Amino acid sequence: MKRNKHLAKLKRGYLFPEIGKRKREFLEKNPDVNLISLGIGDTTEPIPPSISRAMSKAALQLGEETTYSGYGPEQGREDLRQQIAAVLYNNQVKPSEVFVSDGAKCDIGRLQLLMGDDIAVGIQDPAYPVYVDGTIMHGVTSIHFMACTPHNRFFPDISQLPPLEVIYFCSPNNPTGAVATRPQLEELVDYARRNKSILLFDTAYAAYIQDPTLPRSIFEIPGAREVAIETSSFSKIAGFTGVRLGWTVVPEELKYEDGSYVKADWNRIMTTLFNGASNIAQAGGLAILQPQGQQETTALARFYMENAQIIKSALTGLGLTVYGGDNAPYLWVDFKGRNSWEVFQELLEECHLVATPGSGFGPAGEGFMRFSAFGHREQVLEAADRLKAFSLIA
Amino acid sequence: MKRNKHLAKLKRGYLFPEIGKRKREFLEKNPDVNLISLGIGDTTEPIPPSISRAMSKAALQLGEETTYSGYGPEQGREDLRQQIAAVLYNNQVKPSEVFVSDGAKCDIGRLQLLMGDDIAVGIQDPAYPVYVDGTIMHGVTSIHFMACTPHNRFFPDISQLPPLEVIYFCSPNNPTGAVATRPQLEELVDYARRNKSILLFDTAYAAYIQDPTLPRSIFEIPGAREVAIETSSFSKIAGFTGVRLGWTVVPEELKYEDGSYVKADWNRIMTTLFNGASNIAQAGGLAILQPQGQQETTALARFYMENAQIIKSALTGLGLTVYGGDNAPYLWVDFKGRNSWEVFQELLEECHLVATPGSGFGPAGEGFMRFSAFGHREQVLEAADRLKAFSLIA
Repeated sequence: MKRNKHLAKLKRGYLFPEIGKRKREFLEKNPDVNLISLGIGDTTEPIPPSISRAMSKAALQLGEETTYSGYGPEQGREDLRQQIAAVLYNNQVKPSEVFVSDGAKCDIGRLQLLMGDDIAVGIQDPAYPVYVDGTIMHGVTSIHFMACTPHNRFFPDISQLPPLEVIYFCSPNNPTGAVATRPQLEELVDYARRNKSILLFDTAYAAYIQDPTLPRSIFEIPGAREVAIETSSFSKIAGFTGVRLGWTVVPEELKYEDGSYVKADWNRIMTTLFNGASNIAQAGGLAILQPQGQQETTALARFYMENAQIIKSALTGLGLTVYGGDNAPYLWVDFKGRNSWEVFQELLEECHLVATPGSGFGPAGEGFMRFSAFGHREQVLEAADRLKAFSLIA
Repeated sequence: MKRNKHLAKLKRGYLFPEIGKRKREFLEKNPDVNLISLGIGDTTEPIPPSISRAMSKAALQLGEETTYSGYGPEQGREDLRQQIAAVLYNNQVKPSEVFVSDGAKCDIGRLQLLMGDDIAVGIQDPAYPVYVDGTIMHGVTSIHFMACTPHNRFFPDISQLPPLEVIYFCSPNNPTGAVATRPQLEELVDYARRNKSILLFDTAYAAYIQDPTLPRSIFEIPGAREVAIETSSFSKIAGFTGVRLGWTVVPEELKYEDGSYVKADWNRIMTTLFNGASNIAQAGGLAILQPQGQQETTALARFYMENAQIIKSALTGLGLTVYGGDNAPYLWVDFKGRNSWEVFQELLEECHLVATPGSGFGPAGEGFMRFSAFGHREQVLEAADRLKAFSLIA
């Protein structure tokens, strides 16, 4: 069999497995070290009680004849689609536009199937690596990197963009922690409308937005329904990184340039190559959207945001400039032009801390490190103490 | 944005949504009818107690600080990979070759990414529609349909096959219920070795094989490790159709024609575009593979196979020739050249029974109907009674 020739174009190793490998190598040489990871964006706190109990009950009910259920709709349980539309979108999207999935990462892979390979795609630089890798795997060769740096306040200069048929945009951003403002998103939607582009808008971190003036969804922007798909996730809201539950919103109005509707294709892709998110996870999703679940998950977000402030304070104390961390669980730290993987290695060896090299997210991330706010409080406090003693910066 | 031009080549509607639509339309006109479905291959019996309890416990443990876990390895829990290799493959495959997933259907979608689009693909006719649709969506245009009919005992004439780079093969087969024998699979592996093809072997129904001389895995055939990938599922073994858990085995030896290793690419695809199966479902998978779980699921398979015999007996009583149902939960019934959708409609309207039109699985399925053995016993008995009165056959 011939190999998919596009696979050969991928750069070596996906970022997080590479970090895992370096961690393992270090621990093999230094088995007694107590490493603290602020690296991968993995949640650390237990799933709140009303939610874990709902899933526990759903699992038991699958063992009873009267409450057993098999295949659900590939698009997700109807009541969950309704609750997502109502609670998270204030009914500004319809339940029939919400497609429940096993997570945003998996949906991003499937979203590639909507588009041809002869298109120009815009991707933020730095960005979550899956956008670039997924695009390349599916044969797209024209990728325009939109640098997002302190110089442009982490928002690309839209007036300088070439015509792009697809734009990936993530806000709150992974890795920079930047959140696009309403005027910025209006500019982005305006560009997409003028250029007949489709925005693939990723809001996996929307639950961390504290400032009420910042949009939590692209659909808060007038006109977005004709140009945007939004993909999101329960992973970071409720500690569901291992449970796997997310969703994608495809508005009815959204069309390809040939006038056909995108939602019909998305439905075809999801019914053909996907079989629904786990029914136990979906029971958990419903619990998240109940008043008690909302209360518990809001408290969880607040906890992680306190972590962010603790780490931020330690890093700024070293004289470093720190972005993000106010409306996102990521801190984006300027290491003044130093090589990211070198800083990674120094943090690992000197402080026994794992952070993520900015260059792993794209060329414009070189010189930066991403610190995640996910961690047990005592570990975050210990990490902050270790950072304060980080010699290479002093 | 330009539409993926391959999506326009798909035939209207995926089979099962189409059946669902016809069912709904019928029930709207006849709301008091008690429909019995032997259509979609959905499990109906509760998940056995040791397995549902294990998942219930896993969900509660995610709510505790000491037992919480977030992202697992994208390839699946190490202990689950070990147990699959040990219990289901008698350690004839390595744990590192087992990739746990959210189901065979989803893996089939991702498997497309291994191959280029300029290849010739062989697919059984009739077949599970996802092979053809997934192949078309990914841009492959050369599909060779291998007719599997009573005339060739549901096994294609290998000596007549053109050179094919990929062959999808499902045994026990959905929809025909045929199980390939050891000599047949030896012939298939031999073809693949001579033509440097890759076999994508689907064993989602292996747990239903009663005859101990029939292979449950392609890896029981010498030489298969150099030519085959096997994808399988817990869906039909343990009532996991809604829970979502499966796996794919990619042997270390398997190479592309350029000499590079397929397993490395599969690992890249799974780590980049997938995020692991739900950890609660994986806890259930582990329970399935314990002695108690094995006992319970063996009893479950036996129950469904008794259903198969009840339906088979009713259908043969009508003078129909019935294939399958002895080592697979599907019966493939020859309606003597009649149009499948017409028979579907007559069964729906006269008997209030839902079966699946054979033509929905490919042109060679025309004239046949698939009856599934999944159902509560009292409904299966009632279905058998209704079939005995089916006038159009008498």
